[in-house]
Amino acid sequence: MDKKIKTGLVGFGCVGQALYEIINAESLPFDVSRICVKNPGKARSLSEENFTYRYEELVNDPEIEVIVELIDDSEAAFKMVKQGLVAGKKVVTANKKMVAEHLEELMALKENGGKLWYEAAVCGGIPIVMTMDQFYNYEPIQEISGIFNGSSNFILTKIEQEGLDYHQALALAQKLGFAESNPLLDVGGYDTMNKLVILLCHAYGITTTPSSLSTIGIQHIASNDLDFARQRGLKIKLIAKAVRNNNLVHAYVMPCFVDANQDLGHVNNEFNAVLIKGKYTDEHLFTGKGAGGAPTAASVIADIYATIGKPDYDYYKWHDNREITYSNKVSLPVYLRYNHSAELNEFGFEHIWSEGRYKNGGFVVGEISLDNLWSLNAYIEQKGIVVVAASLLENPQRLFATKDQQTVAV
Amino acid sequence: MDKKIKTGLVGFGCVGQALYEIINAESLPFDVSRICVKNPGKARSLSEENFTYRYEELVNDPEIEVIVELIDDSEAAFKMVKQGLVAGKKVVTANKKMVAEHLEELMALKENGGKLWYEAAVCGGIPIVMTMDQFYNYEPIQEISGIFNGSSNFILTKIEQEGLDYHQALALAQKLGFAESNPLLDVGGYDTMNKLVILLCHAYGITTTPSSLSTIGIQHIASNDLDFARQRGLKIKLIAKAVRNNNLVHAYVMPCFVDANQDLGHVNNEFNAVLIKGKYTDEHLFTGKGAGGAPTAASVIADIYATIGKPDYDYYKWHDNREITYSNKVSLPVYLRYNHSAELNEFGFEHIWSEGRYKNGGFVVGEISLDNLWSLNAYIEQKGIVVVAASLLENPQRLFATKDQQTVAV
Repeated sequence: MDKKIKTGLVGFGCVGQALYEIINAESLPFDVSRICVKNPGKARSLSEENFTYRYEELVNDPEIEVIVELIDDSEAAFKMVKQGLVAGKKVVTANKKMVAEHLEELMALKENGGKLWYEAAVCGGIPIVMTMDQFYNYEPIQEISGIFNGSSNFILTKIEQEGLDYHQALALAQKLGFAESNPLLDVGGYDTMNKLVILLCHAYGITTTPSSLSTIGIQHIASNDLDFARQRGLKIKLIAKAVRNNNLVHAYVMPCFVDANQDLGHVNNEFNAVLIKGKYTDEHLFTGKGAGGAPTAASVIADIYATIGKPDYDYYKWHDNREITYSNKVSLPVYLRYNHSAELNEFGFEHIWSEGRYKNGGFVVGEISLDNLWSLNAYIEQKGIVVVAASLLENPQRLFATKDQQTVAV
Repeated sequence: MDKKIKTGLVGFGCVGQALYEIINAESLPFDVSRICVKNPGKARSLSEENFTYRYEELVNDPEIEVIVELIDDSEAAFKMVKQGLVAGKKVVTANKKMVAEHLEELMALKENGGKLWYEAAVCGGIPIVMTMDQFYNYEPIQEISGIFNGSSNFILTKIEQEGLDYHQALALAQKLGFAESNPLLDVGGYDTMNKLVILLCHAYGITTTPSSLSTIGIQHIASNDLDFARQRGLKIKLIAKAVRNNNLVHAYVMPCFVDANQDLGHVNNEFNAVLIKGKYTDEHLFTGKGAGGAPTAASVIADIYATIGKPDYDYYKWHDNREITYSNKVSLPVYLRYNHSAELNEFGFEHIWSEGRYKNGGFVVGEISLDNLWSLNAYIEQKGIVVVAASLLENPQRLFATKDQQTVAV
């Protein structure tokens, strides 16, 4: 390829700079023609003439074939990506929130020849979007489970392995650059939730909104909960999960107990993992770094390559399997820790297998409907209630003592 | 898609039958028009009119767009695939030996519009060929290591976890259908070797012949060797490995010591794994079932889907990075067990860190050149010498006692 493909870059943060460096270091068949940034005043590693402050200069430049959008602000990103697609550009984005919130709209915007890729939006460096769309296209996916947020996983690993408390571990993650500027996006499960929404579309043809997923974070997990897990040989991980039963799919983001011997039990620190159970493929596990400049930029580059002569996503399931629907109407085995026993009245447990008291408050283990948990998401967050699902364990009812064998922790 | 794409199937064994069943069960947009088989007399699950005994009937049928080749005989398969490509067909094959031995020839045969896919040839159900070709296309791959043969891994797992001896474990693998009809293809490392040769092309642009890879199997591993590993907290796995140092790549298939805590130490039974270390992507691990009818057929189906409007492989590295060359001129840390001390004279160890005696024969641990091992492949096999590489361990020299602290096992 003699003539280099011209790309326009939007955003010059951690991923944008890594992308720029790799493109130059590896002499790839694309050039970054122009970089659109927001703040004219900011000191940058490249000279002034590389930058523009007007997105129109990229989108109206007929020589620029590919727009690479790498900014934080999801609403601004959506406007730019939309404009790019309408102008018939090939657009590559890493913005998970933007894609999760607008996927169906984005798919409809490609009429003028615009195309859209977003490998880097889900689990950074792991090639899961392309694989889900192309390799698993028709495959009946029974389950997806995974660790989609490197920052939360790093925090939980440091707490478990080095005995740090939550705040120390969070501070360390921030120091090492693993955490978003607003850590609640990571530890509250929102980042994971957006990634799961994107995979739901490719895996099941379901387009849903992030707000319809029950999303509970790790931010209130304390030593009580970790001791409860440890005493039973378990770890706690922040898990994204989707399960298909006949034509109903339920999904959630929640801290879950994981057995140390399970595949996801080996995934530590800032690593991510996606475990896919297909009807024919059986179980596949993909692990890798879910964040960081170079790994994420590597996914962006794979997308830019795909713009050269390859179609974008097939959305096979979305086109063909419209009979699969999203539903929260299932029971889930969970451990729930409350601070005041009155809080428990809000939760309609279907069965209680075990309960106990802590110095402040107490816990129950039993079955509750996912729909119920979802409707109480704001209450859970407001009251600092901890929920840890036992849905990754083989026989949670047996594992957690039955009601008449109550364990009372102090 | 209203009109179904017509495919012609060659071979109706385990994978062929699974493929036929999945295509019908999932009402996919392709039909199996005709199935070419070898023996007219054999009883089959489908009625006579589905079959032909003349390959020409498939390749000369203008309605058949895609030929799916799933037979054992690699030379017969090569002739058929060649004929298909020359006729401008889209060809999908699962034949690793055929692809490994003829890859460069096959690539040159696509001038008439023929295209070739072979996802199922490497690690059955794991989507590694497409990922290596498309996602890692430009990525400078530093290392590939993996467990590519389900049958050998099953045997080693049963020996390790259930105390079976080699022959019992092999018989069990055969009973469960995990082993090739000639088990030496599995346990001798030849199946793994063919898969590694295919990946070398996509990962480094190297087209080499299977016979230029040092390939040592697990068939002579005995309790001495397993005890040696166990006493040091290690397992033995049959490993495919390729390493790039500057512009030289070396590769081999060999039993290797693996720490139980390493990624590959968790991969048991008939599961396969591919661990890829890239300059920018960092470490990625892919695991899944490497064999079996349905998982392999799932990969074949992904390829058939790709024939609808997608280009076949890019071979980016093969086109661009011709300066990378294959070389065996490196030192490798290995454990070697001999039956007669005279055998040791054949091996020019560069350093010996440790040696010891067994009841019959003895062992040395030290450094030897890979080139040397490769030239002695036939001798190693003939004498039943065991070689286990320590190249997956972090500090093998420290791990295995130095020469003046000889461990003498009995």
